Amino acid sequence: MSHIFREIDGCVTAPQGFRAGTTASGIKSDGAIQDLAILASDVPCIAYGTFTTSSTRAAPVLVCQERLKSGKSQAVIVNSGNANCATGEIGLFNAYRMTELVAGKLQLENEMVLCSSTGIIGRQLPIDKIQVGVGKIELTTDGGSAFAEAIMTTDTRPKRIALEFTIDGKTVRLGGVTKGAGMIYPNMATMLCYLTTDAALDYDWMKAELQTAVADSFNMISMDGDMSTNDTCILFANGLADNTPLNANHPDAPVFSDALNRVLKFLAREMARDGEGATKLMTVHVFGARDKADAIKAARAVTLSPLWQCALAGGDPNWGRIAAALGASGCALDQNSYDISIGDVQVTKQGMAAQYDQAAARNAMAHDEVIITVDLHLGDGKATAWGCDLTHGYIDENTLYTR
Amino acid sequence: MSHIFREIDGCVTAPQGFRAGTTASGIKSDGAIQDLAILASDVPCIAYGTFTTSSTRAAPVLVCQERLKSGKSQAVIVNSGNANCATGEIGLFNAYRMTELVAGKLQLENEMVLCSSTGIIGRQLPIDKIQVGVGKIELTTDGGSAFAEAIMTTDTRPKRIALEFTIDGKTVRLGGVTKGAGMIYPNMATMLCYLTTDAALDYDWMKAELQTAVADSFNMISMDGDMSTNDTCILFANGLADNTPLNANHPDAPVFSDALNRVLKFLAREMARDGEGATKLMTVHVFGARDKADAIKAARAVTLSPLWQCALAGGDPNWGRIAAALGASGCALDQNSYDISIGDVQVTKQGMAAQYDQAAARNAMAHDEVIITVDLHLGDGKATAWGCDLTHGYIDENTLYTR
Repeated sequence: MSHIFREIDGCVTAPQGFRAGTTASGIKSDGAIQDLAILASDVPCIAYGTFTTSSTRAAPVLVCQERLKSGKSQAVIVNSGNANCATGEIGLFNAYRMTELVAGKLQLENEMVLCSSTGIIGRQLPIDKIQVGVGKIELTTDGGSAFAEAIMTTDTRPKRIALEFTIDGKTVRLGGVTKGAGMIYPNMATMLCYLTTDAALDYDWMKAELQTAVADSFNMISMDGDMSTNDTCILFANGLADNTPLNANHPDAPVFSDALNRVLKFLAREMARDGEGATKLMTVHVFGARDKADAIKAARAVTLSPLWQCALAGGDPNWGRIAAALGASGCALDQNSYDISIGDVQVTKQGMAAQYDQAAARNAMAHDEVIITVDLHLGDGKATAWGCDLTHGYIDENTLYTR
Repeated sequence: MSHIFREIDGCVTAPQGFRAGTTASGIKSDGAIQDLAILASDVPCIAYGTFTTSSTRAAPVLVCQERLKSGKSQAVIVNSGNANCATGEIGLFNAYRMTELVAGKLQLENEMVLCSSTGIIGRQLPIDKIQVGVGKIELTTDGGSAFAEAIMTTDTRPKRIALEFTIDGKTVRLGGVTKGAGMIYPNMATMLCYLTTDAALDYDWMKAELQTAVADSFNMISMDGDMSTNDTCILFANGLADNTPLNANHPDAPVFSDALNRVLKFLAREMARDGEGATKLMTVHVFGARDKADAIKAARAVTLSPLWQCALAGGDPNWGRIAAALGASGCALDQNSYDISIGDVQVTKQGMAAQYDQAAARNAMAHDEVIITVDLHLGDGKATAWGCDLTHGYIDENTLYTR
């Protein structure tokens, strides 16, 4: 069964009935930068989210987790420039206050509004500026792209996508945006992600599908091993496409599932590619692991190794660092049976240097995307992880962030 | 009870009956660099070692683990420039061959000789060069300092120490050397360390004491989160000081134990201070954790955060990154009760920004050693970890290592 997924413009406002708007509220020191954004549906949505597992969760994460227990939502307000984390009772009050301002503006129940914040930790939100900002925001059906830009922090470019496809013979759309460039070691996802669809979905099915898709995408990227306090990924489904609600028994369920996984993997790869200071995307495929959990450990260990990330930056096919990362990963491994390839060049055979051409190996490291393939020859477990190289740019970006 | 520990010269050859020697064997591309070294005792020693837990352990690690089952050894040969890792059967053969060359030279049983290698992974040892080199090495009682230099890879300076103290009214000496600057996330210790003493020790007691001292020193340092394939720490005790063998019932056992912990902590701190590209040593004290395991998680998480390592490099008291690292560490944490200080400046109180002077906080970041103190206010667990900052130097060191 092959489906047609058309890539279309508009990202989160591509699905019917979603609008977004942004403003420069002055939270960021450069007052001209768009730093406050609202995304809303015209009608109530079923909604589900996954969040950071950090013990120092930011106030807006706590608010989202509380409100999403209902499985319903209709809008989210997001600011960049301030994470509203490590801000205590005042921070929690301000997070609720943000949602109330939006509820008032859009005439919704407070409980139907969510909030997110991203930026510096440990400073109170300038709630007066946010109040003025909310008043200024105009929501439009083509506001998705501006929304993707307003939630950026150190991102060099917005990450956004929308797909159009058919369910029950009806046109359905799924849109997504993410931000995230540093502090990327999701578990869940060290990042902000908002997804919208006009498909009608059964809540329990949507929840399971989103969990699976996040596990295989956002939870498989890493830039620096730092897990954020504010990770958030929320899917809003407003049902305006008028299909029979999707669940596991619906014949078109695999179509939506496929679309969701495509969107999340696209956004995950875009985040890895835009890691702070990154010049190269690395994709690590692990096959032959004892099981999937081991494959995940192995694949992520390679993306997380600063030494290998440096080798990647230098275009140096120093596969010993991949071997070291695999050995330290905790996955089952037979020293005499694993193979490693960089691009098409097999550099390691049965745990030792393969006969390979150095120039070809260097050439395989010279692309914008470098693909590492590891076969552990122990079982059927497989996984793919994404990461980036480690460069001066990362250091520069992070040495003086608060100034 | 207060003991006198005199710091003396000679490191591993300071204790009676130990000799060391080195040569430039040509393993390293610059043939003038000392890259092969032997350390030996005039008489058999009891010996114990701790090693990397990696699944891609290097051949010499396998040899040491096998031979140390006897609890006895008399010599070790070490090369730098080549890790003899991911080298299969040939690598294992070469590792045994290294020990046989030394056994022949010193007229010892093969089983009494250990070996270590450090350097690039995935290349076979030039065993012919090693054979010639072993022939050239002259062992002397003042060879310890040269030994410390010959085992270096990217280290900028040797790390060595010796202490002299009294047991049973007899003068006892304990010496130690380490190498290690990258791939430092010991578990155990991502590094090479050799310790010698002329104290007589009971084997079981020595084993337990070394395990404890390694856990509190080498296993509490990290530079980059990468665990090595070659980590090795071996203690040789030849008993020539003629004290009653030390065990838990010996009244002077605490004196040796104290000396051992001082030596290992000194060497651990020196390794952290000399991390690749490091300009600053960071010491992280965690108090008030639910238990020691939690304190270790919390302290190590701070030293391991690349974002905080970058802030340290920039002298930026961006404590939110410490909070994020603590939150992600997996330790029990109450968001409303933890405190963080940088040097003498309390920057976080009850999980929020404390009232503090920015200039004072920046000043506390400006020293060669920056001390972070975290109080979780949950229990009695405490731990100390050491790390360093993350700079352009680390990137430069690691982008083109194999060329």
